[in-house]
Amino acid sequence: MAEKINVLSFGPHPDDAEIGTGGALLALKKLGFTTGIVDLTPGEMGTGGNADIRKRECERAAEILKLDIRVNAGLEDTRVTDDYDSRLIVASFIRKYRPDIILAPYFELPPGRGLGHTDHIQAGYLVSHANNFAHLKKLPIEGEPWYTPSVFYYFLPTEVKPTFIIDITTHFDDYISAIFAHETQFGDPEHNWHIRDFFESRARTWGRFAGATYAQAFLSLSPILIRDMMSLAPQYRSLMDR
Amino acid sequence: MAEKINVLSFGPHPDDAEIGTGGALLALKKLGFTTGIVDLTPGEMGTGGNADIRKRECERAAEILKLDIRVNAGLEDTRVTDDYDSRLIVASFIRKYRPDIILAPYFELPPGRGLGHTDHIQAGYLVSHANNFAHLKKLPIEGEPWYTPSVFYYFLPTEVKPTFIIDITTHFDDYISAIFAHETQFGDPEHNWHIRDFFESRARTWGRFAGATYAQAFLSLSPILIRDMMSLAPQYRSLMDR
Amino acid sequence: MAEKINVLSFGPHPDDAEIGTGGALLALKKLGFTTGIVDLTPGEMGTGGNADIRKRECERAAEILKLDIRVNAGLEDTRVTDDYDSRLIVASFIRKYRPDIILAPYFELPPGRGLGHTDHIQAGYLVSHANNFAHLKKLPIEGEPWYTPSVFYYFLPTEVKPTFIIDITTHFDDYISAIFAHETQFGDPEHNWHIRDFFESRARTWGRFAGATYAQAFLSLSPILIRDMMSLAPQYRSLMDR
Amino acid sequence: MAEKINVLSFGPHPDDAEIGTGGALLALKKLGFTTGIVDLTPGEMGTGGNADIRKRECERAAEILKLDIRVNAGLEDTRVTDDYDSRLIVASFIRKYRPDIILAPYFELPPGRGLGHTDHIQAGYLVSHANNFAHLKKLPIEGEPWYTPSVFYYFLPTEVKPTFIIDITTHFDDYISAIFAHETQFGDPEHNWHIRDFFESRARTWGRFAGATYAQAFLSLSPILIRDMMSLAPQYRSLMDR
Amino acid sequence: MAEKINVLSFGPHPDDAEIGTGGALLALKKLGFTTGIVDLTPGEMGTGGNADIRKRECERAAEILKLDIRVNAGLEDTRVTDDYDSRLIVASFIRKYRPDIILAPYFELPPGRGLGHTDHIQAGYLVSHANNFAHLKKLPIEGEPWYTPSVFYYFLPTEVKPTFIIDITTHFDDYISAIFAHETQFGDPEHNWHIRDFFESRARTWGRFAGATYAQAFLSLSPILIRDMMSLAPQYRSLMDR
Amino acid sequence: MAEKINVLSFGPHPDDAEIGTGGALLALKKLGFTTGIVDLTPGEMGTGGNADIRKRECERAAEILKLDIRVNAGLEDTRVTDDYDSRLIVASFIRKYRPDIILAPYFELPPGRGLGHTDHIQAGYLVSHANNFAHLKKLPIEGEPWYTPSVFYYFLPTEVKPTFIIDITTHFDDYISAIFAHETQFGDPEHNWHIRDFFESRARTWGRFAGATYAQAFLSLSPILIRDMMSLAPQYRSLMDR
Repeated sequence: MAEKINVLSFGPHPDDAEIGTGGALLALKKLGFTTGIVDLTPGEMGTGGNADIRKRECERAAEILKLDIRVNAGLEDTRVTDDYDSRLIVASFIRKYRPDIILAPYFELPPGRGLGHTDHIQAGYLVSHANNFAHLKKLPIEGEPWYTPSVFYYFLPTEVKPTFIIDITTHFDDYISAIFAHETQFGDPEHNWHIRDFFESRARTWGRFAGATYAQAFLSLSPILIRDMMSLAPQYRSLMDR
Repeated sequence: MAEKINVLSFGPHPDDAEIGTGGALLALKKLGFTTGIVDLTPGEMGTGGNADIRKRECERAAEILKLDIRVNAGLEDTRVTDDYDSRLIVASFIRKYRPDIILAPYFELPPGRGLGHTDHIQAGYLVSHANNFAHLKKLPIEGEPWYTPSVFYYFLPTEVKPTFIIDITTHFDDYISAIFAHETQFGDPEHNWHIRDFFESRARTWGRFAGATYAQAFLSLSPILIRDMMSLAPQYRSLMDR
Repeated sequence: MAEKINVLSFGPHPDDAEIGTGGALLALKKLGFTTGIVDLTPGEMGTGGNADIRKRECERAAEILKLDIRVNAGLEDTRVTDDYDSRLIVASFIRKYRPDIILAPYFELPPGRGLGHTDHIQAGYLVSHANNFAHLKKLPIEGEPWYTPSVFYYFLPTEVKPTFIIDITTHFDDYISAIFAHETQFGDPEHNWHIRDFFESRARTWGRFAGATYAQAFLSLSPILIRDMMSLAPQYRSLMDR
Repeated sequence: MAEKINVLSFGPHPDDAEIGTGGALLALKKLGFTTGIVDLTPGEMGTGGNADIRKRECERAAEILKLDIRVNAGLEDTRVTDDYDSRLIVASFIRKYRPDIILAPYFELPPGRGLGHTDHIQAGYLVSHANNFAHLKKLPIEGEPWYTPSVFYYFLPTEVKPTFIIDITTHFDDYISAIFAHETQFGDPEHNWHIRDFFESRARTWGRFAGATYAQAFLSLSPILIRDMMSLAPQYRSLMDR
Repeated sequence: MAEKINVLSFGPHPDDAEIGTGGALLALKKLGFTTGIVDLTPGEMGTGGNADIRKRECERAAEILKLDIRVNAGLEDTRVTDDYDSRLIVASFIRKYRPDIILAPYFELPPGRGLGHTDHIQAGYLVSHANNFAHLKKLPIEGEPWYTPSVFYYFLPTEVKPTFIIDITTHFDDYISAIFAHETQFGDPEHNWHIRDFFESRARTWGRFAGATYAQAFLSLSPILIRDMMSLAPQYRSLMDR
Repeated sequence: MAEKINVLSFGPHPDDAEIGTGGALLALKKLGFTTGIVDLTPGEMGTGGNADIRKRECERAAEILKLDIRVNAGLEDTRVTDDYDSRLIVASFIRKYRPDIILAPYFELPPGRGLGHTDHIQAGYLVSHANNFAHLKKLPIEGEPWYTPSVFYYFLPTEVKPTFIIDITTHFDDYISAIFAHETQFGDPEHNWHIRDFFESRARTWGRFAGATYAQAFLSLSPILIRDMMSLAPQYRSLMDR
């Protein structure tokens, strides 16, 4: 039986989970939890690289992020679709790894290039419905039924207010390194400083909301259960003066 | 110098803070934090009771909620207004008690009777702006400047999705007792079981969102900083099957 | 004791209730209900006319609309404010006429000229809160406590979807005549056909939503109680083919 | 030629139409209208029961609801899709029964388990588009073209404000019995009181909005045409005091 | 190599691009830009006409609109779907004509008859994603990669506020003639004055927002870049007095 | 008679108009238009500086921004209120300078510290209503009636999508210098690089939306009239590849 993975992050293409959840995965690993990434496609339609090269980049990034597992679901790039067959495939990973938390790209986006790439939108719907499928025992999915109540979404457009943010300040360098492990997509950070600058400025923007230098933002579709409300208050008084 | 109060809950009338935050205050007290209520008005315009009687009811409820302090800001019932003078008054309580968390009624409500009572709407704006005033050192407010970054809102209309909920299951009986301590408003729970039923059904509705029996719901206007994302996942597997 | 008025329409200036509710008032009168208008101000700051002239125009319009009463609340034009004193004044009319339905201008509007005139916005809030005040027995308001559960709003901006519309086709000519009774505001309909055209095109736009030629649109902040769902279906089959 | 059915309620699985519209169907029947349910799938993927058993449960529920017809569209459970072929199938039922009102599950829901089950979302879109297909005479659908202007949606998430509610107080017991006729899904009401409690608390929540004990809520995407605005005011003065 | 077309308007059925963008296309042509329409389907499922007749109507309308090109993408009426194969087809037109601006129907609409016809909704998504596909060089699409950053949407429901409007006053008669060139859909303007009236009243409604007699409205999903902010102010002082 | 000012920017405190509109004012000046700032208050309640010192900072910033006029409306810091008297004061500036465009802070903000400072919210409402007051000839305001149809809002919260953005790349250094002219607020840019960094990152974020390096963003409450739609397309092909 496969190792249980506490937090499983799904990305449509090989670099998406890094960009949207890499810092948070590092923070979770540091706290002692197991983490993993499921790439839905090999990203074979990207202008740079091909399936083989990108696979090696994925492995390099996985090392940097200290992932316990990284697997590819074998769907086709530019053709991710939230349909019955794809849900069975994605559900099989959920049954196999039995995650406590699922991370997935957000789905309510203006269609087109960038965030609203069809694979991103479809991936958000697909993972959400696959989570439902995974607990239906009559469906033809390998493994025991499983359901993950906590699904949090990344890649939020500016008009969607995140539910919570995760401080990634102490993991920021590794976070950036994991992104640049995808050389065919981003080149090297020295020359492509504007790309680094882009990811840095996003992380700082979220950080500002809660007194952290760098942060990543997530949306929960349901209210989240907080065990100790005081944990939400800034812990050091000096934060007050930001 | 006054005792620092970790969590300060503001209510427009003597029973509002109980109803909207009573269970959460009990949960916080249980965790070891100091708690308090500031009633903005004596509730002298309510059909039942008068200022004196309601003051005694407040004291009784404060005992049940184990509050460290309960004070009245002396504004006038039906005349709560988010204006300069009122902000100075409210800000003085914030400076005095230096809370880490402020709880206040939510402000974006359809005007009229019920939730949208003018005092509720104005109280939400008033406390929010008073918190800003409290840190401006040139303003004529007694005490040292203070600012509370964490303001959470209660009394949310159904179309507003809460940011988080607090499990109040083990405090539910005390929560209801604190409400019914306001006898002039609710009579006794035996005869007025439909009122108890109303509060119970609200608490259950929120509870269902996160595997708790009874809960209270709060809105944060900014994304909240979560220190350990795994704390948001249900802690016991059996919850999965709810 | 004053006559009970089934439907009381509040307008900030002398022609607003005509424009926003005139057709619906005629339809209600036809069904046998008593109707009235409370003008909050004499409209003395309008560029055309003055308080005296506009009063006579009001009377002429009241005849055309077959109103049972038309009164002026005596607030000041351009100074309508949702404050304590104004609420007491407006509440006294609600206690006096004991309406089953209140009509008021909608309040959530971009501030400025046109629909978002400060008097319109304030009037919407003022009437809503006055309705709450009217039922509080300790407030210094003449008459017996009264509360009108049904408040419907007119003057809806295009981005707000109405809850319901009222067919005013058979009353359309009188509706337009009542508007043009305000000569100092609109001149005569012959020369100012573009104004007539404006009101006509609004009425037709709403009419198209439900198979009527002309209609007026209203918003309810709460779901409305429907006694016979089939009454919501078009009654004549031919409507289906529109 | 088949009997005309005034109100046709579509449900993705055998118990959905009961839960979302059962009380309203009883109220309509009482008023003398014909009513029916079209189950889109046999619900064969549900953990409890199978297609045959669930069919018998449907028949038992149909008796309790006094339905004039109850039919199954034969789509597949967990595979309901708003596509061309499915629309032709659903449109054939609309042409056959010529309903004046269609009831369908609401479609704009967060994807996943519960309300946002893919079959629910797809069913809402599918029925809406099938209604359009039904009136296009060139499409290969049996029967004469028909179009139902009034489509009302049930299963509304809390953040969507219903357009109207229907009082089901006098039909409440039968409503609950029809739900529990689905034994494989809900067991018996004695042991599973918490399920009954859940449906009861939803019905009471809506009831509170309009002075009824129990109610069901519906959304209309267009403003509804009201023939007598006074019918929207509470008919008994005592309601005012709720 | 095909002529570059500055502005390419996509319509699901032969008359949609005329109705939604005809006036704006005339205004663009007048300014010296090349314009074209891509009809996604021949509209063969419309009740009036057939594919051949509608093709001739398209040609007549194209003359009136002075289009540089008008082509048909050959998708099937009532079956427009935002899927992989359809995106490749639409993307081939984008690569061929290299437009600077794409016009497409808006996609976020309540499903059903009228604006929310499934072909309209799907066309909006399809064109948006096809624009993304057109720039991906590995996809099997004829021609050189191309991407059009400016996509503006037409057919906006009333609750969506347009980003900008285009004055079509001097082109209004031709705009209407181009619509009525679709005789099988609208008959002749003399007899069907109410249809002309409908389009006229929409154009006037938008015109009122910016001091023009007739206008068409468009939505941009991203903020638009304005080179000279003063160009947004009414150019003639007299407009101020409207 | 005072010089006409084409674009008049209103700020609640001495540095707000700089921060929110400084770059755009420089761009407008470059195009040959007259520009000015009206500071509503002297900012005397800010922790740094006092009214006199801040006045000199304003003058220095005005030079950098090449303003034609900069005046102070004399309202009180922390007490800006959208009331009748304040509107008369603000309207007198609108009548005096007869602007074609008014810039004002956006008003729909969560109350509290930061963007939602009460003076910011009130200033947005106040300027909007004052613009309406300015054209009402019977109001006791000096000067001839004037109305500015174009009001654009700055200081937009992230969840509000701007209508348009203005490229300020070539004016960026002066924009920053004008902000740092307010030494009592921001110190010198060398030491307080993180403040410069904050403004820079905001300007870059908006810039990214339209192929500019730095930009400022504005909201229009009405659709804007565009004279040449092609002016909205990126002018240089290379932008396509960003």
